[in-house]
Amino acid sequence: MEQVISVVIAGPRGKMGKEAVKLVENTQGMKLSAVIDRKYNHQKLSDIEGFSSDSRIYTDPEECFKAEQPDVLIDLTTPETGYLHAKTALLNGVRPVIGTTGFTQHELNELKDLSKSKQLGTIIAPNFAIGAILMMKFSQMAAKYFEDVEIIEMHHDQKLDAPSGTGLKTAEMIQEQRKSKPQGHPDEKETVAGSRGGDIDGIRIHSVRLPGLVAHQQVMFGGDGQLLTIKHDSHDRGSFMSGVKLCIHSVMNLEELVYGVENIID
Amino acid sequence: MEQVISVVIAGPRGKMGKEAVKLVENTQGMKLSAVIDRKYNHQKLSDIEGFSSDSRIYTDPEECFKAEQPDVLIDLTTPETGYLHAKTALLNGVRPVIGTTGFTQHELNELKDLSKSKQLGTIIAPNFAIGAILMMKFSQMAAKYFEDVEIIEMHHDQKLDAPSGTGLKTAEMIQEQRKSKPQGHPDEKETVAGSRGGDIDGIRIHSVRLPGLVAHQQVMFGGDGQLLTIKHDSHDRGSFMSGVKLCIHSVMNLEELVYGVENIID
Amino acid sequence: MEQVISVVIAGPRGKMGKEAVKLVENTQGMKLSAVIDRKYNHQKLSDIEGFSSDSRIYTDPEECFKAEQPDVLIDLTTPETGYLHAKTALLNGVRPVIGTTGFTQHELNELKDLSKSKQLGTIIAPNFAIGAILMMKFSQMAAKYFEDVEIIEMHHDQKLDAPSGTGLKTAEMIQEQRKSKPQGHPDEKETVAGSRGGDIDGIRIHSVRLPGLVAHQQVMFGGDGQLLTIKHDSHDRGSFMSGVKLCIHSVMNLEELVYGVENIID
Amino acid sequence: MEQVISVVIAGPRGKMGKEAVKLVENTQGMKLSAVIDRKYNHQKLSDIEGFSSDSRIYTDPEECFKAEQPDVLIDLTTPETGYLHAKTALLNGVRPVIGTTGFTQHELNELKDLSKSKQLGTIIAPNFAIGAILMMKFSQMAAKYFEDVEIIEMHHDQKLDAPSGTGLKTAEMIQEQRKSKPQGHPDEKETVAGSRGGDIDGIRIHSVRLPGLVAHQQVMFGGDGQLLTIKHDSHDRGSFMSGVKLCIHSVMNLEELVYGVENIID
Repeated sequence: MEQVISVVIAGPRGKMGKEAVKLVENTQGMKLSAVIDRKYNHQKLSDIEGFSSDSRIYTDPEECFKAEQPDVLIDLTTPETGYLHAKTALLNGVRPVIGTTGFTQHELNELKDLSKSKQLGTIIAPNFAIGAILMMKFSQMAAKYFEDVEIIEMHHDQKLDAPSGTGLKTAEMIQEQRKSKPQGHPDEKETVAGSRGGDIDGIRIHSVRLPGLVAHQQVMFGGDGQLLTIKHDSHDRGSFMSGVKLCIHSVMNLEELVYGVENIID
Repeated sequence: MEQVISVVIAGPRGKMGKEAVKLVENTQGMKLSAVIDRKYNHQKLSDIEGFSSDSRIYTDPEECFKAEQPDVLIDLTTPETGYLHAKTALLNGVRPVIGTTGFTQHELNELKDLSKSKQLGTIIAPNFAIGAILMMKFSQMAAKYFEDVEIIEMHHDQKLDAPSGTGLKTAEMIQEQRKSKPQGHPDEKETVAGSRGGDIDGIRIHSVRLPGLVAHQQVMFGGDGQLLTIKHDSHDRGSFMSGVKLCIHSVMNLEELVYGVENIID
Repeated sequence: MEQVISVVIAGPRGKMGKEAVKLVENTQGMKLSAVIDRKYNHQKLSDIEGFSSDSRIYTDPEECFKAEQPDVLIDLTTPETGYLHAKTALLNGVRPVIGTTGFTQHELNELKDLSKSKQLGTIIAPNFAIGAILMMKFSQMAAKYFEDVEIIEMHHDQKLDAPSGTGLKTAEMIQEQRKSKPQGHPDEKETVAGSRGGDIDGIRIHSVRLPGLVAHQQVMFGGDGQLLTIKHDSHDRGSFMSGVKLCIHSVMNLEELVYGVENIID
Repeated sequence: MEQVISVVIAGPRGKMGKEAVKLVENTQGMKLSAVIDRKYNHQKLSDIEGFSSDSRIYTDPEECFKAEQPDVLIDLTTPETGYLHAKTALLNGVRPVIGTTGFTQHELNELKDLSKSKQLGTIIAPNFAIGAILMMKFSQMAAKYFEDVEIIEMHHDQKLDAPSGTGLKTAEMIQEQRKSKPQGHPDEKETVAGSRGGDIDGIRIHSVRLPGLVAHQQVMFGGDGQLLTIKHDSHDRGSFMSGVKLCIHSVMNLEELVYGVENIID
């Protein structure tokens, strides 16, 4: 007998939401029982252009959870709304997977306590891209054995910030593992300023910006006579969906709140 | 107060042995107390061309261990000799790190029991290359989240076997993690035979052979809109030495036998 | 004084056509004077959903050329239609850039003669992707100096044929330059069939198929102690547009027919 | 009937010289007729440890050329000596291939005139690495069609200067081809200084330094939806020898002086 996980999606009309609707509908062992939206109360999703599902739309999450009794809520809205949805879900026996960041510490603690007392899993997922998360996790692990590392992140030339958020986060995770270490030769000289890249506690980071690139990062570890490289290339939003899927399965087996998809990966 | 680990190396004149002598001599917190060789009994290592160390040479391991009372034995000889050295070491309170393969199950069990009863660590290390070991370990971990994977291994064109041993071992480790899955489109057609590579339980493996290559492998995992690549490049024997170093430190904290460097990595 | 090239596009509603319309409208020094379509005669392009241009639509190419007197025709239709459009263009003083393949030798010769007698440039362009064309051209040049080469082409796993057309074309261009040469060690052995890839006159070609890939190829040349790699990654149709742009400029300076964008590149 | 090119090598005991001796001896269609050295006059090369050739050693180049009447001189000494050797060679009917830099303009002009009047080829080759030369040449060609480019050069962490000489030379060759262009978004911001790399007239250059690297460079060109990458990896001196071989053949067909191996490549 196969178990089917029934899912409610909040924010179905956003970019991520649309992909999530498709994902749940097309994945065996899952079904979309309803969606939560600010508009279209009690209509069907198929009434909105671009959707074909018969699932019901609710504007009131509590009404939704009581009527549909789903297993999991996927929330792809905003931090404020996400917090309210998560709380309402837990109070109604539904496991929340929240794809936003920006909760206050107080809100986080409240959800943590509620999750524990209800013995219902909760996942807060600032980043669903499993490939990127594995890249960071592996980088942190490798840093234990290779103390010399440089990061090259590459993005399209419309990106404003350098380094990228993922680049900075990766450097931070590596720093937790290794001691601060200046890299390169102590007497090295830049004849063109900046050519050795940005320096984050000794880790060098290089940001490439070119048309034709999308979102790429490689982390290179060097040791005697060898090089270990961990690389992630991402070219569309679809890359987040495997993370959403993983969270839906994982949250069913949790009995407390987990912050970050990296912590449900082993 | 810093602790200095005293090391005896068996097989100092081989290619690996020479590198290991250099490693131990140049690493803070280690010292080379003696070497074990088939020849040159009771001479000094510096009597042999190419060495400068004053360490004493022994042909009899038992005499060596009793006289020098080292912490660790690094054995870089042959399986038969390695087994005898390991046994003698344990009986004399020395922790063996054995860099050979080919033990019989009976020999392994004997060393395992001896290690446990003496509460002395033992490491059997068929492969010391930490970069390659991490590549395989990360690949196995990634296979849990990405079911589509291809391996490209690249070597110099004097290599006779395709795929490489590391390529096969990687495929095997991935297979332990994922269900067998045919990859590519079910209706795909090769207009040039072999272009889709070798098929190991659905995993495709490609062997590139060119002058100018040394030893390289990349494992590529593909998912919706993203790609995760783990790559190892190795160009000389030095790449093994970080593994030797790790084993010397790790064996001090073990109280039983560990088979495979991958199992002391976390 | 800047010269503005006036362009007519045939086939504006196809995927390539839509991109070409955008290109011509957004490129300084070019203007879209009209389009040729099977439908919508004498309407404006902006009457069709998805277009905003005021350019006029013609179903009759001759009428179009006489009324608009453009400098260049970009034809993105079919071989049969392309041939007729090209001929009509030349007879009316317009330089054709034809983005289709499949002309008969007789048709080609006729266009060649017509182009020469009218002293008007014509470009037949089976492939507009300049990056891919440069990759092939550089590969052919490099083959003169490196006789050992392998090709790795990588595509999404919905692709049916292996190797890719570009892979085969690259091998063919390399063969024109080098003597047939078996590669790898003469005694090499495949323990897994196909692992050494497809064999095209000694050149090994490997086809990787994974979700998350789009269209990629790398050509690797190996020599003593060195490796030269030429790589092209393409992830959307936009990659063709730089070739269209180049052709529009180049055809203005030609006085005869050129087959293949590689032949206007120097 | 096969033609055998007889070669004299000046500087046979240097690192490059040793490789060149091996090359000439092992290449069909070439023979080592003699060597020029500061020492060992009239001995045989095999009298020096590490050599097995019977070729004669001369300290006086003129005597060597008159006695041996070789086709080609390969000079791997110093600029001053190289200049004298080249001049003496030309005056004695021998074609010089000079592997040093640092000639004065006056010396160069003198050799140029002498080469022309004698109708004997001369090649001055500051860099014999054909792979690196092709990378630079292709980059210059590609810059005509892609105006956005970044360079990533990677070397071992004992290298003192950043960027590398090859990196700078590549940027210079690209600049000859393209107009100065600032790259990336006009409003981009570095939150970590240097992360966007060095800026050479708008071209960004990134220098990676890690143990385990040898000498690598990749030049990346980006355009709409595509990326063209040209990459060179070099890991030992052997990579120079294909350039030496090419020069030996090419100089036989020249009747004047050519400066730079890139100018005998087409």
